[in-house]
Amino acid sequence: MRDFFSDTKTIPTRAMREAILDVPVGDEQKDEDPTTRALCERVAALLGKEAAILLPTGTLCNEIAVNVQTNPGDEVICEESCHLINFETGGPAAISGVMIRTIAGENGIFEPAQLRAAIRPASRYAPKSALLCVEQTANMGGGTIWPLEKLNAVAEIAHRAGLATHMDGARLLNASAATGISPADYAAGFDTVWIDFSKALGTPMGGVLAGSAEFIQEAWRAKQQMGGAMRQSGILAAMCLYGLDHHIDRLSEDHRLAKYLADQIRALPQVAHMQPVETNIIIFDLDDSAPLAADIVAGMKADGVLIGAFGPRRIRIVTHLDVDMQAGEDLLVALKKQL
Amino acid sequence: MRDFFSDTKTIPTRAMREAILDVPVGDEQKDEDPTTRALCERVAALLGKEAAILLPTGTLCNEIAVNVQTNPGDEVICEESCHLINFETGGPAAISGVMIRTIAGENGIFEPAQLRAAIRPASRYAPKSALLCVEQTANMGGGTIWPLEKLNAVAEIAHRAGLATHMDGARLLNASAATGISPADYAAGFDTVWIDFSKALGTPMGGVLAGSAEFIQEAWRAKQQMGGAMRQSGILAAMCLYGLDHHIDRLSEDHRLAKYLADQIRALPQVAHMQPVETNIIIFDLDDSAPLAADIVAGMKADGVLIGAFGPRRIRIVTHLDVDMQAGEDLLVALKKQL
Amino acid sequence: MRDFFSDTKTIPTRAMREAILDVPVGDEQKDEDPTTRALCERVAALLGKEAAILLPTGTLCNEIAVNVQTNPGDEVICEESCHLINFETGGPAAISGVMIRTIAGENGIFEPAQLRAAIRPASRYAPKSALLCVEQTANMGGGTIWPLEKLNAVAEIAHRAGLATHMDGARLLNASAATGISPADYAAGFDTVWIDFSKALGTPMGGVLAGSAEFIQEAWRAKQQMGGAMRQSGILAAMCLYGLDHHIDRLSEDHRLAKYLADQIRALPQVAHMQPVETNIIIFDLDDSAPLAADIVAGMKADGVLIGAFGPRRIRIVTHLDVDMQAGEDLLVALKKQL
Amino acid sequence: MRDFFSDTKTIPTRAMREAILDVPVGDEQKDEDPTTRALCERVAALLGKEAAILLPTGTLCNEIAVNVQTNPGDEVICEESCHLINFETGGPAAISGVMIRTIAGENGIFEPAQLRAAIRPASRYAPKSALLCVEQTANMGGGTIWPLEKLNAVAEIAHRAGLATHMDGARLLNASAATGISPADYAAGFDTVWIDFSKALGTPMGGVLAGSAEFIQEAWRAKQQMGGAMRQSGILAAMCLYGLDHHIDRLSEDHRLAKYLADQIRALPQVAHMQPVETNIIIFDLDDSAPLAADIVAGMKADGVLIGAFGPRRIRIVTHLDVDMQAGEDLLVALKKQL
Repeated sequence: MRDFFSDTKTIPTRAMREAILDVPVGDEQKDEDPTTRALCERVAALLGKEAAILLPTGTLCNEIAVNVQTNPGDEVICEESCHLINFETGGPAAISGVMIRTIAGENGIFEPAQLRAAIRPASRYAPKSALLCVEQTANMGGGTIWPLEKLNAVAEIAHRAGLATHMDGARLLNASAATGISPADYAAGFDTVWIDFSKALGTPMGGVLAGSAEFIQEAWRAKQQMGGAMRQSGILAAMCLYGLDHHIDRLSEDHRLAKYLADQIRALPQVAHMQPVETNIIIFDLDDSAPLAADIVAGMKADGVLIGAFGPRRIRIVTHLDVDMQAGEDLLVALKKQL
Repeated sequence: MRDFFSDTKTIPTRAMREAILDVPVGDEQKDEDPTTRALCERVAALLGKEAAILLPTGTLCNEIAVNVQTNPGDEVICEESCHLINFETGGPAAISGVMIRTIAGENGIFEPAQLRAAIRPASRYAPKSALLCVEQTANMGGGTIWPLEKLNAVAEIAHRAGLATHMDGARLLNASAATGISPADYAAGFDTVWIDFSKALGTPMGGVLAGSAEFIQEAWRAKQQMGGAMRQSGILAAMCLYGLDHHIDRLSEDHRLAKYLADQIRALPQVAHMQPVETNIIIFDLDDSAPLAADIVAGMKADGVLIGAFGPRRIRIVTHLDVDMQAGEDLLVALKKQL
Repeated sequence: MRDFFSDTKTIPTRAMREAILDVPVGDEQKDEDPTTRALCERVAALLGKEAAILLPTGTLCNEIAVNVQTNPGDEVICEESCHLINFETGGPAAISGVMIRTIAGENGIFEPAQLRAAIRPASRYAPKSALLCVEQTANMGGGTIWPLEKLNAVAEIAHRAGLATHMDGARLLNASAATGISPADYAAGFDTVWIDFSKALGTPMGGVLAGSAEFIQEAWRAKQQMGGAMRQSGILAAMCLYGLDHHIDRLSEDHRLAKYLADQIRALPQVAHMQPVETNIIIFDLDDSAPLAADIVAGMKADGVLIGAFGPRRIRIVTHLDVDMQAGEDLLVALKKQL
Repeated sequence: MRDFFSDTKTIPTRAMREAILDVPVGDEQKDEDPTTRALCERVAALLGKEAAILLPTGTLCNEIAVNVQTNPGDEVICEESCHLINFETGGPAAISGVMIRTIAGENGIFEPAQLRAAIRPASRYAPKSALLCVEQTANMGGGTIWPLEKLNAVAEIAHRAGLATHMDGARLLNASAATGISPADYAAGFDTVWIDFSKALGTPMGGVLAGSAEFIQEAWRAKQQMGGAMRQSGILAAMCLYGLDHHIDRLSEDHRLAKYLADQIRALPQVAHMQPVETNIIIFDLDDSAPLAADIVAGMKADGVLIGAFGPRRIRIVTHLDVDMQAGEDLLVALKKQL
């Protein structure tokens, strides 16, 4: 199967699996796992933060960042298409009791003026604006990249107004691969930031959340409370380290393939609109002459190519470690067959 | 002081106060208060519901309606300017753990198609769309009235999709006074609905929340849990009954005064925009040639007239029991003096 | 009906009701109600605290004290029979997300050593011990009075260990009436404390919660969030002030009647055990030769006397404003008839 | 280091690690991971339940079981020393809003009559008794085994009263190894039950929670919400399957070693009390003639033997995969040296 549904579909390679065979491990809950410590130190440095913590999933990174940096009844400000509010089953409200205030951005990215308007003045009656979250890259925006100056602008506005700032960096490394701007530079304005290992880096699970030493201290409590505290997590950390070592440099290949596919698809007459393709994600809308997205997806699946329907006529394609140019050609053939 | 800041400012009249002198009361928590029972039966009938419950405040009516009709992580859909999310200090998330999904309406009122788009398909990843809330009249929309057919349309869409429906009827009686449509008709599509007694009806506090007998049973538990269970609440209920008897018929006077003031104010050259004035609320925006709203409010206060600033250049004026035509003329003089 | 079920049954007197007729009021939410302010200042002084806030119910006083002084996942330590955990429908966990750690005291009162053992050492794994709650008097203990030195001892232990301290003073005035120790002295070791007006003081509702100015600031937010913010609350405050003026001095009458009834009842052969009777509450257990408590209660009710069954063979009797010596004699006759 | 601190310290063996090299995996969130499915089916069968779900940690198994089977404000009944309330950082209240009602058992096990007394009659005022949790074996009780008939008795009492029942089976396999009673028989009276893989079975992480098909459906939502949804979790599942295949039969060795050590230690003159040693845990208290537990632990650590201090004079020793008879002899030598 050519699986373009998501970069979460990456299968751990044989080499990545072998990375666990001899790795030293200990009880992570007691801070006795040397491989986990090495991973956390490396990611903290990569993201320019004091400390970091390994968590089983990226969603838990988001939940803990929200939990530690807010109080119940506070408001979190984010773009309306972001992961936090659309793919975490209501976790921010259920677990942390926070209100959500959304901004309608363009391709997942909003303007500093929109943030300014969304921050509430202090009032006994209103929720307290407490945390700004941005997603780099903006998945549902089409893998779009927040420009550095815009990130810095919104972070500064938030900080001046007393809000904490959090970056969901699930695909931050894709942004860096595309622009050459370092992850630490992108994250500089943000109090907390995490990267995901189970997407482009190809591990079976895992995210590392970074921030100040004080924040990470609190995150350890939240991790225990939310059932995220593992034991010999060095087994997982070893695969994450392997991903850092071997799967970052190749991200630009994913981006090249995405651009190539985007150019081919954009030229199809039934494509009404395509979001900007800046990294490894292609999102486009078909016009009424095309079949429904769900039917196209089903038809292509029968031909051995998986893509995703994200609306009645919206399709998403994601490139990653496990799909190459040949898979891309197969995708184009299968797609055209359905149109 | 001519107080046009809000209809919550109404001072209980001497006659209303005298209504408590001889009223029979008992322990409400034991369902032993006859006056409270009489009030609840009367309001249930007025709103066309099986049962009702007296609560100290309208905010608590909203909180309980949300709490009983959702589970943590569910999503509540409402217009972005509504009371529930802007004036309840984050209660829905803090107390009930619900996510909020807002719709940007026009003057506080949205279209059925917008609701349809806001309801999420069932998914393990997304919050569950669980409850529709509408506010009749829409306070921040300018006291605008949801048309009956639109209310019925959104309620039907919600019910078909499995959502419960709740009406914040803080000013529902104003809508009925303006259109002649009964409160029960307006509330027919809604599982729960409440009216406020401390606004136009002039009591010091109190709201009555109505719904099915089963819902009210659950509301009693929530009332106890959230600290809303009083004792000899017949003292309060007697004032509410007085309000029902004496202060409904006169609501049209408030509306006439509001329309008169609106006409006068709209004609002022500095008024850039005024929301439709359908009941007892006037909201308008000034252009850049006028002083800031906060300065105008301060200046008018010095002249004995209170109005409200709801934005840098936005002003709200509310008519009610305690302001008459003379007070209105004073307001116009004081306002013109500031411009 | 002779109603000894609870002091919550007190019916507001005609004189108390008349107290509202001419009282000046304003919008409490805007801090514009002069009578409410006067009440809060008076109660703050009575309890020796910087500030106070009026709330519709005593349960809300407890909920807000817990909410402001804890974070979700923290632990509250209290005696196992206290109101907070047995009569608030799970509010502490539902609203504030706190764990409860109970101490089994004697007649509602525990030893300093028991508190010391219940406070957890700091740990990433355990809930954080955050708040000590005591109930003065201990209702389910039999209206027993926490001795001043014991209160000071537990408060000091709690403070040294970093816990905040809260006193549920629903019947604190009864303790003071019985011992002559001032409410402020009893409350000196406690960060927050409230008194109830709807019990011995005879108002239809209302509690006033006191603490530091900073705490009260936060309590205002919680009050708004939990639906406790009223409007012309001076109407209620006027009755509370009347209660302070006229119903405190007479508390010793309630205590005398309780002691008299206790002596008579203790002498009955079927009474197996009676808790110490120090204020206005009598709790006793019947032996197997007596009918079940529920049957006795039903039989007495038919004779016009209400008392409460609090277990298969446990009975509670409460004296208050509305029951006098004659009512007491009626109770004794009716009780003996059932045994 | 001879590590007797906990069976969580077990280091994944080389053979277990090799089990992941060729295992087929897929995206677990899409139910596409064949190895995870195989594991869940196998554990469901082992525990006699319809379905099961893989979670990163045992704590998350508990949190989800509580979350799905309760509503906020409900009460969970459990023994006072259990993991749920002492080692999960307040998760039940913070995440699920539940109250906790503890029973003081003997060595972690309580009597049916105690449960009967702890279940509350239905009442608007009290938390609703909603869930019974037992821990098999009772860790802090000394690894004690709930007898089958007692388990069945408490489960039946709970079900008759309308409560759901949950078994924290972190060490359920130890109980079965000791008695020959199958895990399914032990779990028969319980709606939900889980086993841990990171303790005696030696994996780096992972628990599998089992219950009805309907429960597991809901658990999937909670898993996503709480950040427990992994991707190619077959990597983890492969190690769990290896543990099931290779590390169950040897549990009796751990028990033999524990009994041997217990006999030796019980004979030491400074041992004041030892809890019954039925599985792989030894908990004992020293008298005042011995040094403090913390000092003994520190001294033994310097000699290369790790044990745990669980109170000023209480010590816990746990046997497992990585400690053999020789390690046990070393422990005895090191312990005696400190006494």
